Amino acid sequence: MTDFQRPSGRATSDLRTVRLTRHYTKHAEGSVLVEFGDTRVLCTASIEEKVPGFLKGKGQGWMTAEYGMLPRSTHTRMDREAAKGKQSGRTQEIQRLIGRALRAAFDLEAFGERTLHLDCDVLQADGGTRTAAITGAMVAAYDAFSVLLGRGLITKIPVKSFVAAISVGVYRGVPVLDLDYLEDSDCDTDMNVVMTDAGHFVEVQGTAEGAAFDRATLNSLLDIADKGIKELLSLQKQTLGLTK
Amino acid sequence: MTDFQRPSGRATSDLRTVRLTRHYTKHAEGSVLVEFGDTRVLCTASIEEKVPGFLKGKGQGWMTAEYGMLPRSTHTRMDREAAKGKQSGRTQEIQRLIGRALRAAFDLEAFGERTLHLDCDVLQADGGTRTAAITGAMVAAYDAFSVLLGRGLITKIPVKSFVAAISVGVYRGVPVLDLDYLEDSDCDTDMNVVMTDAGHFVEVQGTAEGAAFDRATLNSLLDIADKGIKELLSLQKQTLGLTK
Amino acid sequence: MTDFQRPSGRATSDLRTVRLTRHYTKHAEGSVLVEFGDTRVLCTASIEEKVPGFLKGKGQGWMTAEYGMLPRSTHTRMDREAAKGKQSGRTQEIQRLIGRALRAAFDLEAFGERTLHLDCDVLQADGGTRTAAITGAMVAAYDAFSVLLGRGLITKIPVKSFVAAISVGVYRGVPVLDLDYLEDSDCDTDMNVVMTDAGHFVEVQGTAEGAAFDRATLNSLLDIADKGIKELLSLQKQTLGLTK
Amino acid sequence: MTDFQRPSGRATSDLRTVRLTRHYTKHAEGSVLVEFGDTRVLCTASIEEKVPGFLKGKGQGWMTAEYGMLPRSTHTRMDREAAKGKQSGRTQEIQRLIGRALRAAFDLEAFGERTLHLDCDVLQADGGTRTAAITGAMVAAYDAFSVLLGRGLITKIPVKSFVAAISVGVYRGVPVLDLDYLEDSDCDTDMNVVMTDAGHFVEVQGTAEGAAFDRATLNSLLDIADKGIKELLSLQKQTLGLTK
Amino acid sequence: MTDFQRPSGRATSDLRTVRLTRHYTKHAEGSVLVEFGDTRVLCTASIEEKVPGFLKGKGQGWMTAEYGMLPRSTHTRMDREAAKGKQSGRTQEIQRLIGRALRAAFDLEAFGERTLHLDCDVLQADGGTRTAAITGAMVAAYDAFSVLLGRGLITKIPVKSFVAAISVGVYRGVPVLDLDYLEDSDCDTDMNVVMTDAGHFVEVQGTAEGAAFDRATLNSLLDIADKGIKELLSLQKQTLGLTK
Amino acid sequence: MTDFQRPSGRATSDLRTVRLTRHYTKHAEGSVLVEFGDTRVLCTASIEEKVPGFLKGKGQGWMTAEYGMLPRSTHTRMDREAAKGKQSGRTQEIQRLIGRALRAAFDLEAFGERTLHLDCDVLQADGGTRTAAITGAMVAAYDAFSVLLGRGLITKIPVKSFVAAISVGVYRGVPVLDLDYLEDSDCDTDMNVVMTDAGHFVEVQGTAEGAAFDRATLNSLLDIADKGIKELLSLQKQTLGLTK
Repeated sequence: MTDFQRPSGRATSDLRTVRLTRHYTKHAEGSVLVEFGDTRVLCTASIEEKVPGFLKGKGQGWMTAEYGMLPRSTHTRMDREAAKGKQSGRTQEIQRLIGRALRAAFDLEAFGERTLHLDCDVLQADGGTRTAAITGAMVAAYDAFSVLLGRGLITKIPVKSFVAAISVGVYRGVPVLDLDYLEDSDCDTDMNVVMTDAGHFVEVQGTAEGAAFDRATLNSLLDIADKGIKELLSLQKQTLGLTK
Repeated sequence: MTDFQRPSGRATSDLRTVRLTRHYTKHAEGSVLVEFGDTRVLCTASIEEKVPGFLKGKGQGWMTAEYGMLPRSTHTRMDREAAKGKQSGRTQEIQRLIGRALRAAFDLEAFGERTLHLDCDVLQADGGTRTAAITGAMVAAYDAFSVLLGRGLITKIPVKSFVAAISVGVYRGVPVLDLDYLEDSDCDTDMNVVMTDAGHFVEVQGTAEGAAFDRATLNSLLDIADKGIKELLSLQKQTLGLTK
Repeated sequence: MTDFQRPSGRATSDLRTVRLTRHYTKHAEGSVLVEFGDTRVLCTASIEEKVPGFLKGKGQGWMTAEYGMLPRSTHTRMDREAAKGKQSGRTQEIQRLIGRALRAAFDLEAFGERTLHLDCDVLQADGGTRTAAITGAMVAAYDAFSVLLGRGLITKIPVKSFVAAISVGVYRGVPVLDLDYLEDSDCDTDMNVVMTDAGHFVEVQGTAEGAAFDRATLNSLLDIADKGIKELLSLQKQTLGLTK
Repeated sequence: MTDFQRPSGRATSDLRTVRLTRHYTKHAEGSVLVEFGDTRVLCTASIEEKVPGFLKGKGQGWMTAEYGMLPRSTHTRMDREAAKGKQSGRTQEIQRLIGRALRAAFDLEAFGERTLHLDCDVLQADGGTRTAAITGAMVAAYDAFSVLLGRGLITKIPVKSFVAAISVGVYRGVPVLDLDYLEDSDCDTDMNVVMTDAGHFVEVQGTAEGAAFDRATLNSLLDIADKGIKELLSLQKQTLGLTK
Repeated sequence: MTDFQRPSGRATSDLRTVRLTRHYTKHAEGSVLVEFGDTRVLCTASIEEKVPGFLKGKGQGWMTAEYGMLPRSTHTRMDREAAKGKQSGRTQEIQRLIGRALRAAFDLEAFGERTLHLDCDVLQADGGTRTAAITGAMVAAYDAFSVLLGRGLITKIPVKSFVAAISVGVYRGVPVLDLDYLEDSDCDTDMNVVMTDAGHFVEVQGTAEGAAFDRATLNSLLDIADKGIKELLSLQKQTLGLTK
Repeated sequence: MTDFQRPSGRATSDLRTVRLTRHYTKHAEGSVLVEFGDTRVLCTASIEEKVPGFLKGKGQGWMTAEYGMLPRSTHTRMDREAAKGKQSGRTQEIQRLIGRALRAAFDLEAFGERTLHLDCDVLQADGGTRTAAITGAMVAAYDAFSVLLGRGLITKIPVKSFVAAISVGVYRGVPVLDLDYLEDSDCDTDMNVVMTDAGHFVEVQGTAEGAAFDRATLNSLLDIADKGIKELLSLQKQTLGLTK
């Protein structure tokens, strides 16, 4: 294993360069461009003054997410889902994941009968779009709630805990953090982890792409995920000016 | 915790009564009714003598799964997906999971340019339909390959390892095995685990429905999942007459 | 014609073995597995406490039917309609037929503003699925109304007349009752008949698959349909404990 | 019954005025406007030089029908099916009926690997659109085959027998021929009959809209259908110049 | 250019023979068959006693248009949009154009909370269907408002200005009026112009099919469009009996 | 008119600040971010090594465009078209316009059997998205052809003429260039003009949103469009390094 090397030259538990750019577009209440290396996802948070039918009159809010990829965000052009007339199973799976992660971060009963729509659109894909989306959407949602706070519609940001997400995987036999496209398309195990700033899991989704993996490997992967997520949570708070 | 009790009265690491009935319907090459307590799923395996376009001419086979619920398999009637004209995100997520699990069990390069279609249809739902589906589809697929073997089209069953699946979760603070509907609709954490008979993971999908969960809880959940899956794997082999 | 023989060895006016199993699944208000030989259809009746828009406020109820086939209920696997995103013309034709038949059996003005949803799902097909579905749905609907009666929501079962259905056809020149798959795929005329226990017709749908048929043949077919339906009506009532 | 009267004043076994106008539009190989009183349906027959996949290479032809109603062909405007994105069950049922009827009239093995598309579009509806469509499509198809004959692509019109169709029903207790809209929307039994010029049935579809009907009524209905269809068959041949 | 000749022999600024036949079908409040030579479009205007959601309670009306082509209105049969499950981009573009043109002709605030549905269905196509549709829909709409006036529901026809439409184009280098199919499929520039009887433009849509066109050509095209539209406006009013 | 003022303070024939940023994303052969003031559209050009069915074997290429808006590119969030399962009429109209404009710029017979897909996705909308899209797609297409040239697959860029597009309109009675959102939502006439660098028109699409417009107004609008497009064409060439 001495000559193991990641395509990017990163150490096994190194994140790519991560950037969170707030106010990336002007209309949305929250708008964040998140970059994990060459992966770029635009996360917007939009406030709607009503809730879906199943929540009407219950005095609580809702958060939901949608995910999309621009047709040429990828190496070869993908068909546009709007043109095909349906979203793929992968798209639906990812947007359900983002929604669950963000609903774990905020107190749905603390911002009235409103819906927060999180739109995560991939401008450029290079692996890890779903984890970048969750990490960026957290900041966009926070910004959107700040707008509500500024308008006097809520009395405090209804955050329960910050969440961030990262992928980990077994690349050429070695557990590594934050897989880029080259690693992702050639790994044995791929795991996406969503954690809170209390160090607890919101989601753990591990899949053996090639060989099944054992308990020891699972533990190694969770260890480096924990390290990476702590760094992302720190960056989120710093970007929002909550820490220095 | 002394007075903790599961609605069913089961011990925390007890499976429900599991039954695998082979040859449940007569047309499919493999046809298994799997029952996890009151959950009943019909799993059929159908052989098609061709592969999807992306595999044409590569000399290998493919396995794919579809999942459905009869409209009144559930407590209240659900709209029929065929009538609505689309499958829900949940349906797509489940059928993708079943497909990945089964593709991990068999050697796709060892049965020629054929597709094995796994159809998992829920006749009655009481929690755990996706894990029952995987467990039953394993047996149905094995039976279908036996048909190919009997016809002299393959020289041995192309099984790499048996797979089975179970749900585990945190119900009223306690990790429990094989959640039924009452537990599933009132649990904090829900995890589906797919493992091979080598004791390795194919899938680990844990979601915090309520409170996020810590590493110790994750470990307890994996421990009881391991126990349950070993029992299921044993039952599969016994049902197929591979063990006594 | 001395050596005419049906594939099954049945006499020309023999039904296959018919079984009606009540309470086949546990959630639906009515749940009947109907078997006409190897044809097996699960008929559930679900009560919904509202009516479609066009009946709102009119003080009457509604009954509607849906029909589906599991993908591998048939000799070769059919595409799943939910995955294709639409129901075939055949499916729609059958579910409209079932709905009309059942609405003829019950008094829509005698059970309040409720909808009875009849779901007829074919687990195994061997000819005659639509007539089995009507025959089974009659019993499932009766059971569902018994539930309403038991809850004190209606004062009597709103049945006007029992209905049952059977197929008849001309197989190798001879009119026969209750065609199975082998006969159905090789017959000249195929007719589905729905009758009440007063001996009246609700539906007569005859189609010349091959040669057109004359009036005498039509009369012979109706004669044996009459015989078969009387047997089915008798079995329905016996199954429901209304006769011995 | 002495004061029984049909809304139109017709005798019980009178057809409405029927007109068949050939060459109604100029592009189609066959184009017939058929009028049953105020019901007006444009039937075109289009030849396509290929067959559907399931017939490729079998050396035979195919005939298929589509049916549509202009949005304001009816008393109140109906939604346009193209805008709704799907055809109703009624539409599909009717176009399947038209297709079966026409395939019974022609020898599919006698015109090569070609498809005849029959499009029946209702310009104005006043009851009996499906029977008018079959009656008109017969003439349009004949004309289209004449074009093939004229081009030397076939050696004779591949007609097996002429078919025509009419509705009959029980209106205010009396069997009547060729129901118009007023009768159709207020009848107890509605039956569509398709017959050949040999006097044989191709289709018999009777439905009890209100009270179920007995065998004697069925016989009366078939008697007057027989009379009406003979008149239509005669008119078809006269229009085509086959008789005087 | 001395030997320039249009396929039809018309002079460059001649319309084809235009006919407007009112009351073409009997159910619609307005029903006009418009013919521009061999192009025949049935335009119906249907009144609905409600407005779309976005106008509810605003005290004004709405006008909207739908466009369709019968499958064999064209040289070769087109797939039926209802069967394909979606309207083409061309269809949507045309119906949006018709809607805008008609909304420019009438005062939406002067006929209450009603919707006027304009259905323009092409029975036979020979170029210029969209301009024929607009020209015919104007008359159908006027007739429908006359019905409202006759019922005392409005006090005057809410017409602001008459509109008519014509196509112009550059055919073999020469600007010509009212392109038929032969010209349309072989022209360099195609322009559709909608004008009011005040001589003002409602729509100008010019497209260079082949070579781009210069300002002088644009001016010539507008000159002949102006001439043609004046003739159409005159015919509309004469047909409605507003002028002699 | 002395106190006429545009919301932005621009002179009547001033463009907004226009920026063309090449290589905005890394996977596409051409990738340009075009900004017209606050309107930002990402235009990518993707090369596919095949043509649509109707061009197969004809030795020529094809160019086609798709258009989309991110859900929160607008003031209030729009539903995602992929989630709704269809593209709106507006979307289809715009992508057809972009496709026609670009096909006018390049010689389809000069780059082999390839398709150039132009994807124009609006990141932020502030009026004029379709004209920005055309202007940016021209540069993206040029870059994509440069890639083909660099790979030796073509021998020169197959450009016939540069095209650019701009909107003009009548705002508060005054013809103005390049409408922003405030002007666009409050104007009487809206016109989109596409021109070549030879000063010829490819498209002229003028719509009277409020009052119809006369010939003199049309001429004024075309004059300022001409001025604006010349500036855009100059910027395109400068951005591509073709001029200084």
